[in-house]
Amino acid sequence: MHRVASYVKGEWIGPGRAARPVTSAVTGEVIAEVGHDGLDFAGMLAHARTVGGPALRAMSFHDRARMLKALALHLNARKEELYEISYDTGATRRDHAFDIDGGIGTLFVYASKGRRELPDGHVLLDGGIEELGRSGSFKGQHVYVPLRGVAVHINAYNFPVWGMLEKLAPSLLAGVPSVVKPATASAYVTGACVRMMIDSGILPEGALQLVTGSLGPTLELLGPQDVVSFTGSAETARMLRRTPNLLDNAVRFTAEQDSLNASILGPDAAPGTPEFDLFVKEVVREMTVKAGQKCTAIRRIIAPEPHVGAVIEAIRARLAKVVVGDPRAEGVTMGALISAEQKADVLGKAALIGSEAARVFGDPESFTPFGSNTANGAFLPPMLFHCADPDAARTLHETEAFGPVSTVMGYRDLSHAFDIANRGGGSLVASVITHDPEVARAAVEEIGAWHGRLYFNDRDSMAEATGHGAPMPHMTHGGPGRAGGGEELGGIRGVKHFMQRVAVQGSPDLLTRVSNRWVPGAREFEGPTHPFRRRFGELRIGETLHTPARQITLEDIEHFARFTGDTFYAHMDEEAARRNPFFPGRVAHGYLLISFAAGLFVDPDEGPVLANTGLDNLRFMKPVSPGDSIAVTLTVKEKKKRNDDYGEVRWHVRLANQHDETVAEYELLTMVAI
Amino acid sequence: MHRVASYVKGEWIGPGRAARPVTSAVTGEVIAEVGHDGLDFAGMLAHARTVGGPALRAMSFHDRARMLKALALHLNARKEELYEISYDTGATRRDHAFDIDGGIGTLFVYASKGRRELPDGHVLLDGGIEELGRSGSFKGQHVYVPLRGVAVHINAYNFPVWGMLEKLAPSLLAGVPSVVKPATASAYVTGACVRMMIDSGILPEGALQLVTGSLGPTLELLGPQDVVSFTGSAETARMLRRTPNLLDNAVRFTAEQDSLNASILGPDAAPGTPEFDLFVKEVVREMTVKAGQKCTAIRRIIAPEPHVGAVIEAIRARLAKVVVGDPRAEGVTMGALISAEQKADVLGKAALIGSEAARVFGDPESFTPFGSNTANGAFLPPMLFHCADPDAARTLHETEAFGPVSTVMGYRDLSHAFDIANRGGGSLVASVITHDPEVARAAVEEIGAWHGRLYFNDRDSMAEATGHGAPMPHMTHGGPGRAGGGEELGGIRGVKHFMQRVAVQGSPDLLTRVSNRWVPGAREFEGPTHPFRRRFGELRIGETLHTPARQITLEDIEHFARFTGDTFYAHMDEEAARRNPFFPGRVAHGYLLISFAAGLFVDPDEGPVLANTGLDNLRFMKPVSPGDSIAVTLTVKEKKKRNDDYGEVRWHVRLANQHDETVAEYELLTMVAI
Repeated sequence: MHRVASYVKGEWIGPGRAARPVTSAVTGEVIAEVGHDGLDFAGMLAHARTVGGPALRAMSFHDRARMLKALALHLNARKEELYEISYDTGATRRDHAFDIDGGIGTLFVYASKGRRELPDGHVLLDGGIEELGRSGSFKGQHVYVPLRGVAVHINAYNFPVWGMLEKLAPSLLAGVPSVVKPATASAYVTGACVRMMIDSGILPEGALQLVTGSLGPTLELLGPQDVVSFTGSAETARMLRRTPNLLDNAVRFTAEQDSLNASILGPDAAPGTPEFDLFVKEVVREMTVKAGQKCTAIRRIIAPEPHVGAVIEAIRARLAKVVVGDPRAEGVTMGALISAEQKADVLGKAALIGSEAARVFGDPESFTPFGSNTANGAFLPPMLFHCADPDAARTLHETEAFGPVSTVMGYRDLSHAFDIANRGGGSLVASVITHDPEVARAAVEEIGAWHGRLYFNDRDSMAEATGHGAPMPHMTHGGPGRAGGGEELGGIRGVKHFMQRVAVQGSPDLLTRVSNRWVPGAREFEGPTHPFRRRFGELRIGETLHTPARQITLEDIEHFARFTGDTFYAHMDEEAARRNPFFPGRVAHGYLLISFAAGLFVDPDEGPVLANTGLDNLRFMKPVSPGDSIAVTLTVKEKKKRNDDYGEVRWHVRLANQHDETVAEYELLTMVAI
Repeated sequence: MHRVASYVKGEWIGPGRAARPVTSAVTGEVIAEVGHDGLDFAGMLAHARTVGGPALRAMSFHDRARMLKALALHLNARKEELYEISYDTGATRRDHAFDIDGGIGTLFVYASKGRRELPDGHVLLDGGIEELGRSGSFKGQHVYVPLRGVAVHINAYNFPVWGMLEKLAPSLLAGVPSVVKPATASAYVTGACVRMMIDSGILPEGALQLVTGSLGPTLELLGPQDVVSFTGSAETARMLRRTPNLLDNAVRFTAEQDSLNASILGPDAAPGTPEFDLFVKEVVREMTVKAGQKCTAIRRIIAPEPHVGAVIEAIRARLAKVVVGDPRAEGVTMGALISAEQKADVLGKAALIGSEAARVFGDPESFTPFGSNTANGAFLPPMLFHCADPDAARTLHETEAFGPVSTVMGYRDLSHAFDIANRGGGSLVASVITHDPEVARAAVEEIGAWHGRLYFNDRDSMAEATGHGAPMPHMTHGGPGRAGGGEELGGIRGVKHFMQRVAVQGSPDLLTRVSNRWVPGAREFEGPTHPFRRRFGELRIGETLHTPARQITLEDIEHFARFTGDTFYAHMDEEAARRNPFFPGRVAHGYLLISFAAGLFVDPDEGPVLANTGLDNLRFMKPVSPGDSIAVTLTVKEKKKRNDDYGEVRWHVRLANQHDETVAEYELLTMVAI
């Protein structure tokens, strides 16, 4: 028996007298108790805001990314234990890979993106400098800062680990403490995973709390700095969304709801093509993984009318091989639904679908799950329907059976297929299995606005494609309308959901300090020695080297042209160069200018600056003619520590001619010893 | 008398029997009729969705940007006419500059950003390619596509022109048709402006409709592809937000509400500093522009306790010079409030504020507006309050008098100032007048999450600073909590509010077609001639040149070093180079490699490729040693038409060594004749 406690204000509480029993999906026996009496919800929020929040915000983005990596490693070493507990949710070992490995993988991706894509500081820049005045003395920069409240994560039962971690990774990386509320039916898995994380000691106190059972008045206690992030049914979302306090205080509310996701077989993907087989394989996988209890599962299978028969036959042939039963038993390929209630719900919805479509595979009346002690389990066979007239159908486009149920429908032409796909009223994902780039282009333009993700697959990508139903941490997850109108994940985009974007305006000096990045126009100052003699930790933002000027002669240009082979006429032929609309006559090569620039600013001897690793945003702004000279201004723009040995220094480089007109500008990247 | 019709389904309708009278803010006389009977609201939405939407979406981003520019020029030529009509709202000529010129300026900025920052196509890319597999055959790209619905813009009375155009510019640029609902009290100004735009013939039919009077059941008729963008009071927002249809269908709802904006005088800005004078000037401007009827106006003036007396004195001295009266009259510097109702409301709120603060300037009881026929106008003097105990105050931090009313409060230290600023519960803008970069940094970290915009000003920026209260089209406008939790403007960010972000996954070939940008791994093909011999219109995405290889000798390296002056030891000294952690021994200069690369791929003769204008994202990935060779692969990555003569071609450049290992990669920008 799992006695699933809540973790609030640093203590494990309950389950107490108000606890609810939870049954095994496989055996129907009570295996857990979940819930609590008398949790101090206001105290829980205060604990997050006054203990967890400050602790997380004191860490930099990189500190928090390292924390996520440590958590991921900790859980990864214990995942067999989580597998073991999870079987009772009806999940097979293949399902565990999605839930448990998928959740840990999400932590790893956020840990890695946090190090690579976020600064080692407290403020995240959004976009570049906006020029708000003519002379450059007043500018704008958008930044993100962590919200100063709590993230309340309300999760669904189907992914007790991934569902928690896909919300937790971005909120913790943002620096926002979280309260996790798992669905009761699988709370024993989430509870075990939270306990592992708390016991690890990796998280600062107050960063993570757990409520099993009711959230009580929590939503009524939230404010403008808090976020509610919900995954579940449209009905529950509707109820939560209407909470007056959330509306009146503009509390952020993100919903990720089940939706009627579609998969379209491209017009080019006739039987016999690799795409046809791929389509059938994806459909069957989506119907059977997690027994179809996936918010991204394919509910509507949209195929060219002439191929509908072949599609049905091919899906039936694959479904016939599916072994439904005790997920622990050898050979079983599809487990149970989470509970008897869900099973009844799916049967009810399947009956509704049956009013507009004929069942062509799977009979729940004559079916026996594999394995002993499964008679009271929530098992169902995969069920395939065929709707002959999708235009006349209504229920089909509105009813989601949250189980191994899907419906095939035929389309006349691509625009008809798109029309059917969009009739779902907004989905998390639509897939198109096609090898034709024009079909992909049309799909993005015609159905993109109705679906949070468009998944294309074909013979070229099938070996690596991640699957219609798998939300990747790199890509946004969520969708318009029926899917809830929200967005999660999407790499660093998901982190921003827990931050406030602020438009900052001010002088270059103030913006430099705020953004920790040198803003053109801000103060430049000379360091005590040549900057190439300064170590990473010594170089300061704004530290500047002014070089002497060097004249560019016609001989230089001709010499460079012969040496490099770049004899472009603008450098070699006065008459032709004059005919070019951009040049006054022969001009120096751009590469000659930046090569000479390096000659001017490089300090040749061994020192802390180890290598030039790259160059960004080079723009040639004014031609340089023979006789002109250039001088370089080299300014430390930004610093990023990479490891204990090196850091990346980004320099702003300006090349000016003898009239102090900028002829080129760029950013130079160097690796510098710590 | 302005008879303010609605414009629906291509016809001007009303005002009919249900029309409401509107009075002049200055004289109190009825000057307009607004409203309608029996508008076909469902037909209006269908017209937008089926006529306006497709027409706008058929245009590219650049087409729509040009349309905005034409609109801006058209209105700019007619702005005196709008000024004339606007005086009756109580606005002075200075106020017109904010409303009318500000609105037209917003159109210009969006027109310009649309051309510079958006592609000349139908899909906007968001971020870069995400690698989702090891071998690169399956990748991700986020894109934005226009919503396929209607934007319903509900505007406030205080900015009848800017308020409309700041919503219209981004929604039209996104490709989404709009319905404008102006506030009744100033609908005659908005109506006149809409009529100018419609009469211009610049907009496609269905792109813009106008409802003066009630929106009827419109909000109940919206769906997941529609957007409601509201500006106004918190109470109205609360009511609209609760519309069940909006909640149940996840209809996007953006609110920009009045808020209790604060301005903080920095601890460094003592009397006698330029910042002190600047602070006083900003405060007085914010109190008097539009008679304080500005959602961004300064309501709470937060100053160091020792300077509170000086601040009050300085503000009083300036306020004493304000001439309130008929905005048409010579010498008047502050006009009327919009209506008698608003005046009464402000007096009521001022009385509430008076319960916690002492009035130190402005007595509405003994005050006469300047000008004839103003006795029934909605005039008020500016009123300044002083609250001696802001910590004990409650009403002050919750009550907004939407008029020329503001309150001074003292702070003990910076953290106290921040605490007071945040007690507003979320605002559109907070300003800090300081010359100390550390104060700016602390403000961003400590109060950034509570304010949509942080405005810093000091002696360096004051000549160009755009003002605490002026939302710039480049920067986001909106704020958390009390400010509504929304965001508008912010350059292209504002356009995205009317688009759906879609996560697209697929093979490099499909993503190349979808994004109109070559994705590494996608098909490369040879053109019929050298690409430098091909005009902009002839070059195709993916067209590729493979050059022969060139060997790099030690002599090349030494020659280049002597010629450019770049004698960095990694190129010149074998022993020292070996000590460098990144190099196996002496290596070629990065600039040598890209110069030789140009020598390999450049076609020297006159032709359509006119100039190398820049270079992006150069990364050196592997050192090149003497004896190694490099060959170049040059691929057309992206094309952007600039004008009728030239277009920018972005090339993907890959440098590979004799083992086909990538040694450097970058993007090259060239200007190519059309």
